[in-house]
Amino acid sequence: MSFGSDNHAPVHPKIMDALQTANEGLAPSYGTDDLTAEAQKLLNQWLGKKASSFFVYNGTAANILALRSLTQGFHSVLCSQSSHLWNDEGIAPEAIAQVKLIPIPDHHGKLQVSSLQKYLQRLGDQHFAQPKVLSLTVPTELGTCYSMEELKELTSFARAHQLWIHIDGARFANALHFLQVSPVDFFQQIPCDILSFGGTKNGWMFGETVVVFQAPDIYPIKFFRKQFMNLPSKTRYLAAQLKAYLQDDVWKEIAEHSCAMANLLHHELQTIPGLHIPYPVQSNAVFLQLPQPWIKVLRSRHFFYVWDEETFLCRLMMNWTTTAETVHDFCRELRSLVSKTATDQSLVR
Amino acid sequence: MSFGSDNHAPVHPKIMDALQTANEGLAPSYGTDDLTAEAQKLLNQWLGKKASSFFVYNGTAANILALRSLTQGFHSVLCSQSSHLWNDEGIAPEAIAQVKLIPIPDHHGKLQVSSLQKYLQRLGDQHFAQPKVLSLTVPTELGTCYSMEELKELTSFARAHQLWIHIDGARFANALHFLQVSPVDFFQQIPCDILSFGGTKNGWMFGETVVVFQAPDIYPIKFFRKQFMNLPSKTRYLAAQLKAYLQDDVWKEIAEHSCAMANLLHHELQTIPGLHIPYPVQSNAVFLQLPQPWIKVLRSRHFFYVWDEETFLCRLMMNWTTTAETVHDFCRELRSLVSKTATDQSLVR
Amino acid sequence: MSFGSDNHAPVHPKIMDALQTANEGLAPSYGTDDLTAEAQKLLNQWLGKKASSFFVYNGTAANILALRSLTQGFHSVLCSQSSHLWNDEGIAPEAIAQVKLIPIPDHHGKLQVSSLQKYLQRLGDQHFAQPKVLSLTVPTELGTCYSMEELKELTSFARAHQLWIHIDGARFANALHFLQVSPVDFFQQIPCDILSFGGTKNGWMFGETVVVFQAPDIYPIKFFRKQFMNLPSKTRYLAAQLKAYLQDDVWKEIAEHSCAMANLLHHELQTIPGLHIPYPVQSNAVFLQLPQPWIKVLRSRHFFYVWDEETFLCRLMMNWTTTAETVHDFCRELRSLVSKTATDQSLVR
Amino acid sequence: MSFGSDNHAPVHPKIMDALQTANEGLAPSYGTDDLTAEAQKLLNQWLGKKASSFFVYNGTAANILALRSLTQGFHSVLCSQSSHLWNDEGIAPEAIAQVKLIPIPDHHGKLQVSSLQKYLQRLGDQHFAQPKVLSLTVPTELGTCYSMEELKELTSFARAHQLWIHIDGARFANALHFLQVSPVDFFQQIPCDILSFGGTKNGWMFGETVVVFQAPDIYPIKFFRKQFMNLPSKTRYLAAQLKAYLQDDVWKEIAEHSCAMANLLHHELQTIPGLHIPYPVQSNAVFLQLPQPWIKVLRSRHFFYVWDEETFLCRLMMNWTTTAETVHDFCRELRSLVSKTATDQSLVR
Repeated sequence: MSFGSDNHAPVHPKIMDALQTANEGLAPSYGTDDLTAEAQKLLNQWLGKKASSFFVYNGTAANILALRSLTQGFHSVLCSQSSHLWNDEGIAPEAIAQVKLIPIPDHHGKLQVSSLQKYLQRLGDQHFAQPKVLSLTVPTELGTCYSMEELKELTSFARAHQLWIHIDGARFANALHFLQVSPVDFFQQIPCDILSFGGTKNGWMFGETVVVFQAPDIYPIKFFRKQFMNLPSKTRYLAAQLKAYLQDDVWKEIAEHSCAMANLLHHELQTIPGLHIPYPVQSNAVFLQLPQPWIKVLRSRHFFYVWDEETFLCRLMMNWTTTAETVHDFCRELRSLVSKTATDQSLVR
Repeated sequence: MSFGSDNHAPVHPKIMDALQTANEGLAPSYGTDDLTAEAQKLLNQWLGKKASSFFVYNGTAANILALRSLTQGFHSVLCSQSSHLWNDEGIAPEAIAQVKLIPIPDHHGKLQVSSLQKYLQRLGDQHFAQPKVLSLTVPTELGTCYSMEELKELTSFARAHQLWIHIDGARFANALHFLQVSPVDFFQQIPCDILSFGGTKNGWMFGETVVVFQAPDIYPIKFFRKQFMNLPSKTRYLAAQLKAYLQDDVWKEIAEHSCAMANLLHHELQTIPGLHIPYPVQSNAVFLQLPQPWIKVLRSRHFFYVWDEETFLCRLMMNWTTTAETVHDFCRELRSLVSKTATDQSLVR
Repeated sequence: MSFGSDNHAPVHPKIMDALQTANEGLAPSYGTDDLTAEAQKLLNQWLGKKASSFFVYNGTAANILALRSLTQGFHSVLCSQSSHLWNDEGIAPEAIAQVKLIPIPDHHGKLQVSSLQKYLQRLGDQHFAQPKVLSLTVPTELGTCYSMEELKELTSFARAHQLWIHIDGARFANALHFLQVSPVDFFQQIPCDILSFGGTKNGWMFGETVVVFQAPDIYPIKFFRKQFMNLPSKTRYLAAQLKAYLQDDVWKEIAEHSCAMANLLHHELQTIPGLHIPYPVQSNAVFLQLPQPWIKVLRSRHFFYVWDEETFLCRLMMNWTTTAETVHDFCRELRSLVSKTATDQSLVR
Repeated sequence: MSFGSDNHAPVHPKIMDALQTANEGLAPSYGTDDLTAEAQKLLNQWLGKKASSFFVYNGTAANILALRSLTQGFHSVLCSQSSHLWNDEGIAPEAIAQVKLIPIPDHHGKLQVSSLQKYLQRLGDQHFAQPKVLSLTVPTELGTCYSMEELKELTSFARAHQLWIHIDGARFANALHFLQVSPVDFFQQIPCDILSFGGTKNGWMFGETVVVFQAPDIYPIKFFRKQFMNLPSKTRYLAAQLKAYLQDDVWKEIAEHSCAMANLLHHELQTIPGLHIPYPVQSNAVFLQLPQPWIKVLRSRHFFYVWDEETFLCRLMMNWTTTAETVHDFCRELRSLVSKTATDQSLVR
């Protein structure tokens, strides 16, 4: 039993079936196969907009390709200081996309318009990396979600200041679910230039889609994808996954279930006295501060990551296979630790 | 029917089955799963040596990660001027691995020791990219294969001149088949520091393995893989493929069949008068110079790539699903074109 | 009259003379001339230590070469969020040195040990740029100076956590003057791996010296300097400047005078009511918050830079030619503005 | 006495005087000083065209900034295989400008139109670095010079194939002298997008000028110059040199003299039997193949570089201070070696 990551989950059966079905006969490579054309068409319908889409292998690649496509080698990208982009992409954004990331203090993982203005100084100054992109993580790395209002405000600010808008949507479907908005409505209301549209953490075997609504120039993107070592040859297997994911509301089913499990866990945790849950639960993650001695005990049955090695903030991640039983089981253990701690000093932090 | 690429072939059924079987329950990510441990152990047995192995998504990534791991940012890599590395990796070797490739004239795609010495000048000269790696493509991009003797000579030269040895083995199993040597014997006889061990072109869905026998420092490699946007999260699906590929001699079966089809095609072509087959057929590729007007006709039924837009050299690539019927069918068409050309001037180049 | 930058000052006459004197006959290039050998020997005496030194053209190059020499392409550098490194090197640190800079909140431009610990998490985690260098600006970009005690504490922390120590000393002589310590004593007490030793802002025509006390590997540095487009050919002209700067205490004379002028200005400013001088004056810079309407008036006679476009913090920079008259003249103007503002609302911010 | 490099020569007295004269009072930095404006105006008159010009510190920087300004990160640059760009810039073109250099066989250092066509294949193919720039070295690294006819042919080819044209003119004035054409006439007849206009090898202390006639976008260039660590702060000292160089025909005087010395040497060498002078002498360099045992003897009095460690091709470089006496002296020594070799077997190669 693991709350480690949505990456620990198996491939959703409908997506696995699609891979099996696609595995028939020869197919041209590098995106020239019929399945890729079909999947891209379906994606545009789903988005309610015409976009160019580029399959890549993983989320890092999606983000880096997005940023490279929007910048020219002397630009900065405004992002939250708790974003995956700032903390978990090694130095790929800087060394590969050749952007300077500006990590901005956030509230519960969410950027606020009021914090952005002061980063827009020194325009035209050759000594200073020029702000060019606002990167929003939707939902955020801390399991929270911008409201549509917040997104409108932030993207209006970006548009008003000539910043391109990138959405890191590694778990984008979860945000749609939380916001109770269809993708078509979302993109009608929220301007977005490039979306990193997550697959791997949403029931795929591998693969993400870089959705380009708009960019300074579309032509170079295919060359950068190749250079970034993310040009898949057998594209039918990515197309098959995308198609299966968008069809029959598989994307919705996965999002709904994993978010529901996070809500269940959150609900249960609130009944346990003395726990600190620092952020609203608005996606499939629950963050929880735990006494250090509890962590080893709890992880022996339910793996999860310690998010901050100083404060012992922990992240519990739900996935499409997480069961209510697992959630209850974990909470039982927690309650038992609460009791034990009352009498055992060694369990107090 | 396609002679376009081994990338056009579907996933081998045993590998597809392995993916299906692996798709059960939760598994830790980023190489910490049991299946990855198993596959890596099996790989070491297959190699007859202990090596560190790193899964990546595609062949470009394998090569770039290999070169980055062997160099320090001011080095050059000696390679054949007809290699995939020089011609088909965009500028990834230069821009990402930060090496200077030195394209060396070759014979039928094979480097010769006698050509190498003159590239080893100016050692220590700060103006000059310092030679540090010899990259050998086995089998070569032109479908030929170094003999064991040639490999020994080249690798001895490299060792004598403090050059690391990289083998680009996108179709490595084909070389083992051609050389009629086991992997264990191969690596006992041929020193190699890093092998790009190909999966995708050999019946996998996606994925390659960077096999590190030796490197200046192993520790940074995992960081470079991440930076190069090629750290797979759900590693079980790569491990499952590697395991299935190495077990039950699947690797051998695939190599044997596709090479046999190339030999069959070569044999048939030799019976057709007036064709120019410039290179020995020693892997799963057959190169053939064709009159320009024939190309359109032939490609309408059997897709293949024009390798040189000036000389109309064409590449016909066999894969594990290619049938003798397809080969015969293609040759029938060719023969028919020979006949027609005798009477139709528009078919003469 | 300008408080714009120490870059606005002419070359010190003794340094200009040295350039003239060096301009005699032929001399070998790229550091093989006698004058370079002499200057490097003299530098080692001045430092009281044997170091390898590398001339470069400017301060950006010195910093970037230093960081590249201490890291391997997957490392981060801890620096102050108000440092030149973070704010004024474009994206050169990231794109060229391939490091991730971590901007750390500071106090008056100075890093504090208590802020550093939390940046040393996730060691060995491949997703996370690994902290490897502590970069200290001495004196800081805000005109303040670490005490010897503070430097000992910070460098001890660095040593204890396997961080290399880089000192950005674009105005290093000013710090020696403020600390009233000789270079020999400084480096006996303060561990430092690489020093960017400033020339241009200290009376040179051009050029800085990268002083390498220690590095993972010295050999690659000359290659990186070439790659970073900072290998000077006619090194005698850099050597001549370094020699003249170190001889006859020219370095001390320049530092003393410009710091004295800053102290004079600071002293005068304190007698003017209502001014906000946010930082201690410990080098040749004075920072001053001014009502926006005053800035245009003042700059018409004495150019200076607005440091923060939001708060109208301004920087007044002294150089080796600044006179007490200029300082008094500026203060007279300021006093006059104070008076006028009492009666003229348009001058109130 | 040295035939090592034009880099071994001192600064021309008129240029040194200009530096001295410029060293008066304060001047704004980063190109905002009056002298820079004057020099740039004078340069445009000299060119007979309006161009944007950017001072940089050295020739590597000039070339790399030029190439970066003309390309977008997935392009290749066609250049001669004997060019400085291919052989002597380390991996700066690849790692910093992010271009792939394509080294093309040449004749006496000169590219020929007939060799270029075959490098223009695979346009639009994402696997292949896309040809975008033709880089011509004028005069070539081998001391030869394209005729105006040859330049017209090559640049017409470039224009016809949408290649930008870069001229590496580290010794550009020498070419003007050889061609007996004024700069105004040259640029009226020869299309050029960016010229690396050499100073250092032509009597300057340091510095080159990147002359941009045309580029995809001018705006980013200043940011790239900063990123490439080549933004000079005290620009008056570069401007002073450029101005002095262009005024009073100093550029012409230097070119004339050093080329005349090369012609003199060439003339003398032709009277010595048995010497192999492989290339026409059309600039300030003379290439000469020498028996290995002679080299040590000759270099003890007249330093020069061995250009090819295999063939013992040597390069003798004239500069503005080279005297006829030195040339005669060298030839006397050579003649003496010819005599001695007749009787001393140890002097035969």
